[in-house]
Amino acid sequence: MMKLYELAGQQDNNLFSPYCWRIRMALAHKGLDASYIPCRFTEKELIRESGQKLVPVLQDGEKIMHDSWGIARYLEETYPENPLFPGKSAVAQTLFFRHWVEGTLQPLILPVIIMDIFNHIHEKDRDYFRITREKRFGMPLEQREDKSPEQIERLATALSPVRAVFADNDFLCGTQPGFADYILFGAFQWARGVSETKLLDQSDPVFQWRDRLLQLFDGMPLKTAGYPV
Amino acid sequence: MMKLYELAGQQDNNLFSPYCWRIRMALAHKGLDASYIPCRFTEKELIRESGQKLVPVLQDGEKIMHDSWGIARYLEETYPENPLFPGKSAVAQTLFFRHWVEGTLQPLILPVIIMDIFNHIHEKDRDYFRITREKRFGMPLEQREDKSPEQIERLATALSPVRAVFADNDFLCGTQPGFADYILFGAFQWARGVSETKLLDQSDPVFQWRDRLLQLFDGMPLKTAGYPV
Repeated sequence: MMKLYELAGQQDNNLFSPYCWRIRMALAHKGLDASYIPCRFTEKELIRESGQKLVPVLQDGEKIMHDSWGIARYLEETYPENPLFPGKSAVAQTLFFRHWVEGTLQPLILPVIIMDIFNHIHEKDRDYFRITREKRFGMPLEQREDKSPEQIERLATALSPVRAVFADNDFLCGTQPGFADYILFGAFQWARGVSETKLLDQSDPVFQWRDRLLQLFDGMPLKTAGYPV
Repeated sequence: MMKLYELAGQQDNNLFSPYCWRIRMALAHKGLDASYIPCRFTEKELIRESGQKLVPVLQDGEKIMHDSWGIARYLEETYPENPLFPGKSAVAQTLFFRHWVEGTLQPLILPVIIMDIFNHIHEKDRDYFRITREKRFGMPLEQREDKSPEQIERLATALSPVRAVFADNDFLCGTQPGFADYILFGAFQWARGVSETKLLDQSDPVFQWRDRLLQLFDGMPLKTAGYPV
C-alpha cells in the first residue's frame, strides 16, 4: 500500500496543509488506498529518504516522491483511470490555475488564519514556525494577522473568476472535479483545519462548490478535525 | 461564406478589439473562411440584425451571433475539427481564464493604451468613445492614462502565473494553441494595433509565446496595421 506523509497539528487528524490536501483528494479521486502518516514540521527524519524537507511525500513501492504537482503528474501517468487532468489542455491549464491560487489566493487567506495556524500546530513546532515565518514576513506573526471584514472582502473579490465558472459548471473542471478543484479546495481546507473565521458567505456559489467538495468520497474531507465553515 | 463584423479604427485594416481578435484567431484555427467587415463604434446599423450593439458579430448562413464566448462555443460545436477546447475540462478551465484576463489583465493594459486607442479610432467615433469611457472611468481619458514603468511592472507581475506555464509548455493549452491562448493574445493585439509602448521585455517567456502566436496562420496577425512589439 502507498504511504502519504502529511502535515499534522497537535492532533494526529488535524490536517491543514493545502498541498497535502491536494494529494489526499487525488488519491481518493483515483480510488487508491494509502496509509496516512502524520508528520510535524520538526519531524523531518520521517521523510529523510525523499531527499528534502517538505510534505506531502508519497511512497509507492520503491518510489519516493515529493512536491504535490509532481506527485499528481505521477499518479495520473501511473494510474490513468479517473483522470485528474481530463483532456489534452488540462495539465497546462491547471498549471496556470495552480500558480494563480498560490500567488493570488493563498496570500489573501494567510493573514486571516496565521495565528490560528500557530495555535494548532504541535507545541514542539512552534519555535520553528515562528522563527521561519517571521523571517519570511519581516514582522511578528501577530502583526501579520488580519481578520478584518475588508480582508474577507478582498478574498471575495479575488474569487470573481472562480465564481463566474460556477454559473455554468458544477466544478472547475466541468461536470466532474479534477486536480484544479483539489488545488482550490486545499486552500479552503487549510483554513477549515485551524480557523473559526468564515471565509465565504453561504449565498456565494463558491461556498456551494466547496460544499460539493466536502461531500465527496463519503464526506472524507469533513472527517478530519476542523471547524464549521 | 461566413461574415465576421469586427471593430476597425480610422484605417479598415487597423483591428484592435481584443474580443474580435479571439474570433479572428478561432476561425483561422479551424481553417474556416470568412469575409471580414470593418465596423466602427458608431456604425451599429451594420450589426442591427444581431439584436445588440457590440462586435464581434458572426453570421453563418441564417445564423447571426454576438459575444465572443458564445461564438467560440458555437464554432466548436458546429465545426469540431481542430478543437479550441481540447478535452473535457477545457471549456470550464478556459472560462476561468477568460474572467481572469478580463478582470485582472486587461484593466492593467487599459491605462497604458487608452489615449493610443482614442488616437486610432475613426474621427466620427471620438465623441462617442470619449463620452462613454469618461462616464465609465469617472475622469477624463487623459487622466486615466498611465504609461509609467511602474504600470508596466504591475502588468509583468500579474503575468506571473502565465509565465509559469511556459516553463513546461509552448502554449496555454499545452502543445497546441487553443481558445485560452487566443483570449490572452487578443489582449496583446489590442495594444499592438494602437500603441508604440512595449508591454513585454524580449527576455520574457510571455514575449516569446506572443511571438509564436504572431507567426501562426502564415503570420496573419502581423498583417493587420499595428506597431512593432
